[in-house]
Amino acid sequence: MSRDGYATPDVLDQNCESRQALELISDKWTALVVYALVDGPRRHGELRRTVDGISQKMLTQTLRRMEGEGLVNREVLDRVPPHVEYSLTPLGRTLEKPLVAICEWAMEHLDELREARASHAGAAT
Amino acid sequence: MSRDGYATPDVLDQNCESRQALELISDKWTALVVYALVDGPRRHGELRRTVDGISQKMLTQTLRRMEGEGLVNREVLDRVPPHVEYSLTPLGRTLEKPLVAICEWAMEHLDELREARASHAGAAT
Repeated sequence: MSRDGYATPDVLDQNCESRQALELISDKWTALVVYALVDGPRRHGELRRTVDGISQKMLTQTLRRMEGEGLVNREVLDRVPPHVEYSLTPLGRTLEKPLVAICEWAMEHLDELREARASHAGAAT
Repeated sequence: MSRDGYATPDVLDQNCESRQALELISDKWTALVVYALVDGPRRHGELRRTVDGISQKMLTQTLRRMEGEGLVNREVLDRVPPHVEYSLTPLGRTLEKPLVAICEWAMEHLDELREARASHAGAAT
């Protein structure tokens, strides 16, 4: 047990809260929203254009969930017309490194994935 | 365009192959299987016990998909009874760092997630 009375977290244990935390973040839209917010706050419409292919509904759901989990901050700026901005909270910023690494892995290993897929398809025939 | 004739990968572009690569790895079971294989090869039954909560079917599907993508190697060892072992390929090993970081994030930030969730629930009432 750790000092706060909880057992040591173990993501391999399905009943550990860390498994739910993993489920929360192992989602492509969460990764892409974090990736899109790395350089600073963005408005809803900007995010929608940046994260190509995300639907209005999915973006709203993803942002609300991330706000509820303390990863994203939603700020209503007092302008005419009112202007809502989303940014990473300090907790959300701790996700930058691992989630950006995931996005970068996807971009860096394309050729190897393509080759592996082709050779597996060849071996299967 | 990069030297091999493909455009520079951009995971934010839904038509880029890197988006499909991201989809492949932003999956909790993929993360957990990589996490479980970090210390070396494992048999199917060992993986099933290690990745608590994964069903037989989901484990088989996840391993087949990862094998097809060149992330996991499946080796049939010539023993009686025959013995099948799974291990990370060199490409799969490149996923260790980002995916283990995701799993560790989930274990390290539990308290903050718990607090953020409680304070959001309080603010919403």
